[in-house]
Amino acid sequence: MNYPSGIKKQRKKQNITKYNNRGMGLEEEINSVNNFYIEKNIAIIYKKPTPIHIVKIDYKTKKNPIIREAFFEQPSTTDYNGIYKGFYLDFDVKETNNLSKFPLSNILKHQIDHLYKIWKNGGIAFMIIRFKVNFDTYMITIEQLLNYIKKSEVKYIPKTFFDNNCHKISYNYINKLDYIQIIDKFLEEKNEKKEH
Amino acid sequence: MNYPSGIKKQRKKQNITKYNNRGMGLEEEINSVNNFYIEKNIAIIYKKPTPIHIVKIDYKTKKNPIIREAFFEQPSTTDYNGIYKGFYLDFDVKETNNLSKFPLSNILKHQIDHLYKIWKNGGIAFMIIRFKVNFDTYMITIEQLLNYIKKSEVKYIPKTFFDNNCHKISYNYINKLDYIQIIDKFLEEKNEKKEH
Repeated sequence: MNYPSGIKKQRKKQNITKYNNRGMGLEEEINSVNNFYIEKNIAIIYKKPTPIHIVKIDYKTKKNPIIREAFFEQPSTTDYNGIYKGFYLDFDVKETNNLSKFPLSNILKHQIDHLYKIWKNGGIAFMIIRFKVNFDTYMITIEQLLNYIKKSEVKYIPKTFFDNNCHKISYNYINKLDYIQIIDKFLEEKNEKKEH
Repeated sequence: MNYPSGIKKQRKKQNITKYNNRGMGLEEEINSVNNFYIEKNIAIIYKKPTPIHIVKIDYKTKKNPIIREAFFEQPSTTDYNGIYKGFYLDFDVKETNNLSKFPLSNILKHQIDHLYKIWKNGGIAFMIIRFKVNFDTYMITIEQLLNYIKKSEVKYIPKTFFDNNCHKISYNYINKLDYIQIIDKFLEEKNEKKEH
């Protein structure tokens, strides 16, 4: 439109370029590998849509009503769930800009409560956590997370904790973040524990 | 406000009364029993939010952005999923006004495709179908549904088919549509088949 908007537009473009250089965000990577898993019939896992509270709907065109006023709602669960080898999987993904620690303030209480319930009902409940600085990405189970929170006196998880206790997720299948490989490792370890 | 709005309000009230007399819709009943299951830690099952394609967002109030233009999207999966006794459950609910047959046009292709994938990956995939005339409500598995469609030459399922082949869902726990009871029966039958 006029001059000030033009400046704004250019700013937006610069941001997009930067983003491309950095690669996809963690959520986009998870969505991409999920599509791959569905295509190959490896696992059926979807991101849940964000819940929305609708205030006003315009029904002028009956076939395709237009939402004219709505607000984002706090989800009561996590972002992802689905099935793998008959197991129920449930998880959330989180990223931090911090170099050496993951602030616990990134995790909301309702997410922990939900994952705890899933775990207690026989599901595989976890979080996928990424340090954006070097793309190191880990799977931490709700059991590990709750044990850590119970013992810890600080409001963060040091990166060294992830390195020493959690599985790191690596890339596979032409640049896909293959977290199902880690679920396999987790299931193997669970079976080994049972046998001993 | 002024007179015409007053009339509108009264009309709305009358509709609500009628609705109460008829009882809740099937979806509301399922949501209600799901809340009960979560409270009692029997099962953790949620309705997925409807996916929405957002066109315009108003960021005037940064904390709570207002969606100003959006459209409903076709969900790619089913409405409900969750976990019960470690099993992954996935289903949709359907109602018909028809007295003696359930029209297959009520079921969309992507719903069948999704439920088929879930079944093949070890989940319990089914539909809950209600005849509104007398509230008779049944669970039909995706296996039963696909077998029926393969053999049938008509585009509907007669109510007698449900009566002869499917579990009817009854009320329990002070007027709740207790479909988990039927999942138990289904699991028992599955075990019996394995043993023979």
